[in-house]
Amino acid sequence: MRKEPKIARGLEGADARAPAVVLVEPQMGENIGAAARAMLNFGLTDMRIVAPRDGWPNDAAIAMASGAVGVLESARLCADLDEALADVNYALATTARTREMRMPVLTPATASEDLHARTDEGARCAIVFGSERRGLENEDVLKCDAILSIPTNPHFPSLNLAQAALLIGYEWRRIALGRHDAPPAETAEEAAWGRPIPAPKADFENLVAHLFDELDARNYFFPQEKRYAKERNLRVALARAGLSEGEARTLRGVIKTLAGARKDN
Amino acid sequence: MRKEPKIARGLEGADARAPAVVLVEPQMGENIGAAARAMLNFGLTDMRIVAPRDGWPNDAAIAMASGAVGVLESARLCADLDEALADVNYALATTARTREMRMPVLTPATASEDLHARTDEGARCAIVFGSERRGLENEDVLKCDAILSIPTNPHFPSLNLAQAALLIGYEWRRIALGRHDAPPAETAEEAAWGRPIPAPKADFENLVAHLFDELDARNYFFPQEKRYAKERNLRVALARAGLSEGEARTLRGVIKTLAGARKDN
Repeated sequence: MRKEPKIARGLEGADARAPAVVLVEPQMGENIGAAARAMLNFGLTDMRIVAPRDGWPNDAAIAMASGAVGVLESARLCADLDEALADVNYALATTARTREMRMPVLTPATASEDLHARTDEGARCAIVFGSERRGLENEDVLKCDAILSIPTNPHFPSLNLAQAALLIGYEWRRIALGRHDAPPAETAEEAAWGRPIPAPKADFENLVAHLFDELDARNYFFPQEKRYAKERNLRVALARAGLSEGEARTLRGVIKTLAGARKDN
Repeated sequence: MRKEPKIARGLEGADARAPAVVLVEPQMGENIGAAARAMLNFGLTDMRIVAPRDGWPNDAAIAMASGAVGVLESARLCADLDEALADVNYALATTARTREMRMPVLTPATASEDLHARTDEGARCAIVFGSERRGLENEDVLKCDAILSIPTNPHFPSLNLAQAALLIGYEWRRIALGRHDAPPAETAEEAAWGRPIPAPKADFENLVAHLFDELDARNYFFPQEKRYAKERNLRVALARAGLSEGEARTLRGVIKTLAGARKDN
């Protein structure tokens, strides 16, 4: 009889290389659950919880986590930050108190590059968040290697725990996707949905000639000295569209239709 | 006696260059307020609200916005997406339905680079979000120039409205801060030779309506079940050209000319 490991629930798409997320003395279960959701959006699944105020497990966290409950089920409960970081080689502390600590300060983007490089080298990395109300104590910040600071509007810095975790997870995945040689998400065919292969020049020229002929027959290019500029402007606008073979054919149909008689005449 | 303008409340740190955020038929006031908070974290303040389900102003939105209430107070209430985009030159639609629309698809990072470049050139840009439940309707997506898609874990894509707005605001600010040291490589005027500022959406919509009317009068869209695909394909091809205001005017002249009688008939 096969038994599904409990940990697999809701952890599809996990990125085993991604950093651990350490929550130090989190208060509201809802925030822990929201952080789990934010993490799983970008493939982060290794959560470590240090001395949560309301104990563990936490029903409010589970309710909020919804499809990301697997992150909570596999989370590690720790007595203190030392325990949470015991197997970690490199840790970043998230805090806005950057100056007084006299430690290196990274943005999410530079931190993500750094974490990827260190992970490549075999390091286990972690990002450490403080409690909702007070953030990280200085002694906790000092147990980390550098500070991670999110450059918000200095007049309105209001990120909550889950939003900070979301941005850091986003950055991890953004760099991860960008480091593959070819973008994994889209094949050439998919990319072509957005920007089709332009029609062969012969087709484009036939379209332009067809349009100009019909316009000429209606004196559009009169007076003669304006012809060049008018033709150029139309060509440039049409060329910029990068029309596919099918689109060029469609536009020829449009010209033919417009140049025909109105059905209600 | 000095009178504080109402709009200034809570808009400190506003980035006037930042794109507008358009919410189409948002449902929960709480989500509108949370989006306002997310925006202001990264200096975005131009919110436009299309047909909110629960009317406007909305007490739940105000309560949730907290210190970002100024974003709500200066938000523009619009009857439809056309009104919201009337003065916008370039709009991105946020949707996960990327394939079927056959439009260019950008990540937040590439979109942010693109929006900064276009804003440098003088374009007013916007990012369009659909309702919480259904997202954007196809017809709304087609009123935009490209699709913005956030590369989440395909097994757990659970971003809410405010989180999506947060990530896009973050990307805008990340690129903004990163560009400070490098002077612009080209002036707006130089850039405009290669890629003109697209016409305001009101002009583009008028062009499309003019074309479709003339085609309709000639039964181009018969049979009815092919109308949607035909309209979409024409729209997408025209939108890809990024027609300037002058070019849109020129094409209206072309349609009028073609739809008129041949001079040699």
